[in-house]
This record gives sequence, structure tokens and C-alpha cells, in this order.
Amino acid sequence: MPASPIRKLVPYSEIAKAKGVHVIHLNIGQPDIETPEVARKAIQEADIKVLAYSHSAGFESYRKGLANYYQKHDIAVDFEDILITTGGSEALSFGFMTCCDPGDEIIIPEPFYANYNGFATSAGLKVVPVTSSIDEGFGLPSVQEFEKKITPKTKAILICNPGNPTGYLYKKEELEQLRDIVLKHNLFLFADEVYREFCYDGAIPFSVMNLEGIEQNVVLIDSVSKRYSMCGARIGALISKNRELINAALKFGQARLSPPTYAQIASEAALATPDEYFTNVTQEYVKRRDIMVDGLNAIDGVRCPKPKGAFYCVAEFPVDDTEKFCQWLLESFDYQGNTVMMAPLSGFYATPGLGKKEARIAYVLEQKELEMAVKCLEEALKVYPGTLR
Amino acid sequence: MPASPIRKLVPYSEIAKAKGVHVIHLNIGQPDIETPEVARKAIQEADIKVLAYSHSAGFESYRKGLANYYQKHDIAVDFEDILITTGGSEALSFGFMTCCDPGDEIIIPEPFYANYNGFATSAGLKVVPVTSSIDEGFGLPSVQEFEKKITPKTKAILICNPGNPTGYLYKKEELEQLRDIVLKHNLFLFADEVYREFCYDGAIPFSVMNLEGIEQNVVLIDSVSKRYSMCGARIGALISKNRELINAALKFGQARLSPPTYAQIASEAALATPDEYFTNVTQEYVKRRDIMVDGLNAIDGVRCPKPKGAFYCVAEFPVDDTEKFCQWLLESFDYQGNTVMMAPLSGFYATPGLGKKEARIAYVLEQKELEMAVKCLEEALKVYPGTLR
Repeated sequence: MPASPIRKLVPYSEIAKAKGVHVIHLNIGQPDIETPEVARKAIQEADIKVLAYSHSAGFESYRKGLANYYQKHDIAVDFEDILITTGGSEALSFGFMTCCDPGDEIIIPEPFYANYNGFATSAGLKVVPVTSSIDEGFGLPSVQEFEKKITPKTKAILICNPGNPTGYLYKKEELEQLRDIVLKHNLFLFADEVYREFCYDGAIPFSVMNLEGIEQNVVLIDSVSKRYSMCGARIGALISKNRELINAALKFGQARLSPPTYAQIASEAALATPDEYFTNVTQEYVKRRDIMVDGLNAIDGVRCPKPKGAFYCVAEFPVDDTEKFCQWLLESFDYQGNTVMMAPLSGFYATPGLGKKEARIAYVLEQKELEMAVKCLEEALKVYPGTLR
Repeated sequence: MPASPIRKLVPYSEIAKAKGVHVIHLNIGQPDIETPEVARKAIQEADIKVLAYSHSAGFESYRKGLANYYQKHDIAVDFEDILITTGGSEALSFGFMTCCDPGDEIIIPEPFYANYNGFATSAGLKVVPVTSSIDEGFGLPSVQEFEKKITPKTKAILICNPGNPTGYLYKKEELEQLRDIVLKHNLFLFADEVYREFCYDGAIPFSVMNLEGIEQNVVLIDSVSKRYSMCGARIGALISKNRELINAALKFGQARLSPPTYAQIASEAALATPDEYFTNVTQEYVKRRDIMVDGLNAIDGVRCPKPKGAFYCVAEFPVDDTEKFCQWLLESFDYQGNTVMMAPLSGFYATPGLGKKEARIAYVLEQKELEMAVKCLEEALKVYPGTLR
């Protein structure tokens, strides 16, 4: 696997810091939001004498609690449809290895979360991208575009909804188009819905689990990382109404023995997080999004579709190449002692050459930091040698 | 992956329990030993506001502490040689995927820990067994036996030392024989040394990391699971002096983001476990081993080499088939309301048909339980219809 454009920037961010420049990290999706107290307290109060293996599918009590959580979100899931995994990462790996054979193809709308490449490669799969465009706000590509990519080796489609890196929230109609493709070609539909709680402007996410007629084809990937700001727990879930699939995935679960015990305790306790926690978090993210997206769109030559979900946005900059621009921001620029680190979008495309004017911004920082970030970008574009306008 | 002989027995153990029979579980390596207090306390006292991702290679402070632990065990390891993983399981997966290509072959002395099959299969590897025999106490097969199995596709040898399921502790001379094979054929040598602390009768384990001349070929697999009775933590490590290998493995680590944070806190704190903890644990296991192994050898027709390490032994029983015997013990036998659950050894061999008279016993229970287990087996052999004597 080649180094990602984000990782290539890390040495330059160190250079900036060594010079005393404050780097505003818009490049990673690590929220600064506090983990719910109920989860942290459960760990402190856990009375464990022998830290033993748990069941390979996860605590039954946690699986039952999680099924209840989905039911509250109008997603009809039984606890036996759930396999607890070590992060959403492991859920994806198990899902790929269970549903696909080496050499199979998986279609993913691009730009997409770059680590999908790693899990697909480990499972021997070929990632086939279908390109979505900033011109359409990164909506789902047309059925025709998908059809063009389907071959006898196509085994599955993977989406992220709401999306990383775009923040795009698929409409029910778009998901129904996917359903029709899946039915017609008998594919699996993987959906990474880890940003479910982060939907804005009254938008209500529609889960693939509620698509009628493809219940046996749908695989839901979930995680506590973003929902409860518990990225370090490493607890996710693989969910499907297809019992044969879950039983097969459990064999991979048995090989790795069990998901981490402490983190399961925290995750189970987190189910009791009060609703107001999410209300507050959502309100905060709406403010952050508006500062960032409205601020970016006010800059001459920059455009940034306003996302309805997650905590990312993709902006297009009037520059020669965002990989160079992002490096230059760290290496050669500061505004009043501040600069910005963004993720060049080329690393989120599987098609070479795409995303050269785009970057992903994670608006996971305090509002004041984001205001400064916008100001930095505005000033930077005035002096960056590769600015095109 | 087919269901293992152990898992096939689970429904029968449920039947026994439903009848009110007390099942003595000799079938799993889940110690009843308490996790060190220093580790449990660290979790309770951890002041975490945001449970964030850690570094993909693990906490640097933990890696440095772990390097110090190895140095105390006369294993010269630098913290940069260490990648913290989610259990020894993930260390094996990362190691296989890093060092081998799909279609490559890995040689493993059998009987071996059955989950090696799962990790090898996931990485697309073919497991090639070299058979060790109860007649030689499960010592290392001869160089000639290894040489017979080496093909152009052979990429690595994997050993477990001290061994699961045999408890055999390889002598330095045996490891030097392996070194010569590895050097001659330019292979990787993986060694699972997670039972390092469990060595008896004054035996001192010799680490593959100290084999001279193959420093760039050796990959050490480690875990806190057994050492600190922290199986549920899911913290392991992949260790090698081969920096290129560690850097490549880190890419898989980056794809899965990070090992679990709480468990790393516990593991780092566990490094301060007082020496007397291990002295006490070892003394306890020696007593347990002696009850079990001496007890078994005193039964007519049973033989069981006395292991010098880990907390398993392999016994040969005068029966038609230990798969049937183990099932019968659960389904149709009790002695004063007790019966025994063991792991038939056929599941630990890759060669079909081997191990039919053997079973693995984990002596991880209290002495009184083990005494009753021996009594049960003695009485069972008197009445089991498939007893051959």
C-alpha cells in the first residue's frame, strides 16, 4: 500500500510546529467532543477480577442493548443479527472476507474513505470506483454509471452514508436505486452508517436495513467511534438479516477470539447516553459546519457543497494541485502564527488524477479555531504561487 | 472453515449442564488467575475525557516500557522494533500478510494451535505441517523432516514456544536447528512466545530473538493475554529487528487505525506487576500440572509427556477416538455428578487422521477441580464402550 497524501504531509506539519506555527488540524476525523460520562464511569466502576475473553460475537447483553438502540431508530434488528467487532474496521474486513472471494470486484462511489482500499486489498478484492462529482454535490452516480462497471466478478457495492469524505446524505430515492441494482445483479450491499447521529437541517437518515426486498443482501457496518466520541474503544458491529452470513463471519470472529472487553463495557454503558447529548453535539456541529462551509464559499474561487451529515466537507480550491497547496500551507505559510492542515482529496479517489483541486476538511474543532482556519485559507490563496484566478 | 472438534462439543456440554452435571472445563485456555491489581487499578484511575485513537503502532510510552520488559528478559529489543496489535491474533495476521503472498506456504510443526489455520487462510497461505510425536514428547521434528516439506513456495516457519497444545519447551539446540534451516532457505521464522512466563522445573525459555545470524528473518508474536491473565484486553505485539517489515506491517495497522486504548492503559500498567505475582502463578501451575499429568500417567493405558511450559498437556487415551470419547463424557457419563470437557487433538493437526487417541487438557483450574477431573477420567475409561485394553 502506498503512503496516503495525508501521511505524506505529517513531516511538514512537524516542520510547521517546530517553527512555532500553530497547525489547525482539519485533516483527521478525531472529534474533540467528550465521551459520554455514563460510558467513562462504567469503566471506572467495572469490578473485574479476571479480564477474560468475551464471547466471540460480543457480550450478549450488549448485542441485545444494541438491537434495542436500532429499534429506537426504526431499524428492525434482532440481537442475533449482530456480531460485535473490533471497530468498524474489523466489521468491514469480516464482511469482505465472508461475502467475497479473492479476485472479486467491489464497486464504491468515489471519493471514498481511503482505508476501504486496505480492507479490500487484504481480502483480495479489486475496488472499482464510480465517480461522484462536486458539480452534483457528490450525490449518488446514476444507475447507468453503476451498470457500466458491473462485470461477472462484481460481488458487492459499498457506500458510506452519511459520507466520509463528502458529508453527503443519500436520499431514500437514491438508496432505492441502489436496491434495484443489487436485486438485478444479486449483489451484496455494504453500508457504513457510522455517522448516523450526525445529520443536520432536520434530515433523517434512511438505513439500508430498511430497503425492502434485499434483506438477505444488506450488510450494515457500524461503530461507536464517532457516535459517542469513542474512537479509541475500537468497538464496531457487523449486522445483517442474512443469518448464514453472520454465522460465517462469526468463524473469523472465533479465530481472533473476542472483541476487547473493557471497550465493550464502555460501549454497552454508552447506550444509556441521554438524548440531549446528541442534541448538543448536533447543534455544535451545525454551527461548526456553517462557519466552515459558509466561510469557504465566501472566498473567491472556492466552492464547497453544504453537507447534511457527518463532520466533513469537500472543498474545491482555485489551485494547481491541493497536494502541493496543503504541503505549502505547512511548509511556507502562516497567518498570525497559524496555518491549516487539510487532507488532499486525491487519496480518496481510486481513479488516478481525480481530486487535484479538492481537499477534505473535518470540522471537528472549536468554532474559534475554524474561524481562524477559514481566515488562513483566504489569506493563503492570495499569496500561494499556484493560485489560479 | 469447518467447525472445530471443540466447538462441536459445546452443545453436548450444554446437555450435561442441563442434566445438572458439573462440567470441568479442561478444554479452554482461559486462566482463572486474577489479573494483576496494578493493571485493573490503572483503568479505574484513568482520567479520559475524549477516548481518542491512539497511534497506530500503539502508545509510544507502552512500546518503550515493553522494550524494557524484553531487555529484562535478555531479549534485546528497541521500542521501534515493536508494533502493538489487537491481540496476538492480529500480530499473526499482520505478520503473515506482510511477509507472505497469497499462495505461499508456511510450515508449522503439528499439533498446533488451531486458530493458526484461520489466520493463514485469511492471508491466502497454505499450511504445511511437520508432524511431531508423543513418542518424542512433541520435541522438534528433525531437520530432515522440515527439508522434505520445503518447496519454492515455502516462505516461513511458525512455532509456538512454549507450545500450545503440547506444553513443549524447545531447547536452544532445537531452535538453532531451525535457525540453520531458515538461513539455508532464506525463510521467515515466526515464533509465538506468549507463554514465556510459564516455564517450570527451572527451565529458562530461549527466545528466537536471540538466534544469531537471522535477526532480519525473525518475527516474534507476543500478547498480554496469558502473561497477566488479561485475555479480554486484546493487546499483543508484532516484534522484529527487520525495520522494513515493521514499517510494512504498520500500514495494516494504519488501515485499522489503532489498538484499543483502555486495554493499552491496562497493559502498560501491567508492566509494573511485581515479580512475586509470577512466582506465585508459576508455583500454582506446577502444582496443577503435577496433579494432572502425574494423575493421568497413573491411569492404566494413559500416557502424558510432562510439559515444561504453558498450561496445557496432551494425553493419549486407550480409546477408539477421542472425538467420540469427549462427546460421550458430556453426553453419557458422570462421576458423582461431575464430568470433564477436553479438546480432541484431531483439530490441532493439519494432517487428516492424526490425534485420534489424543486430547489437549488445559490445567487452568483449581487443584481440587483437577483432582476430580483425573478421577472422572479414570472412572470413565472403566466404562466407556470404546475403551481399548
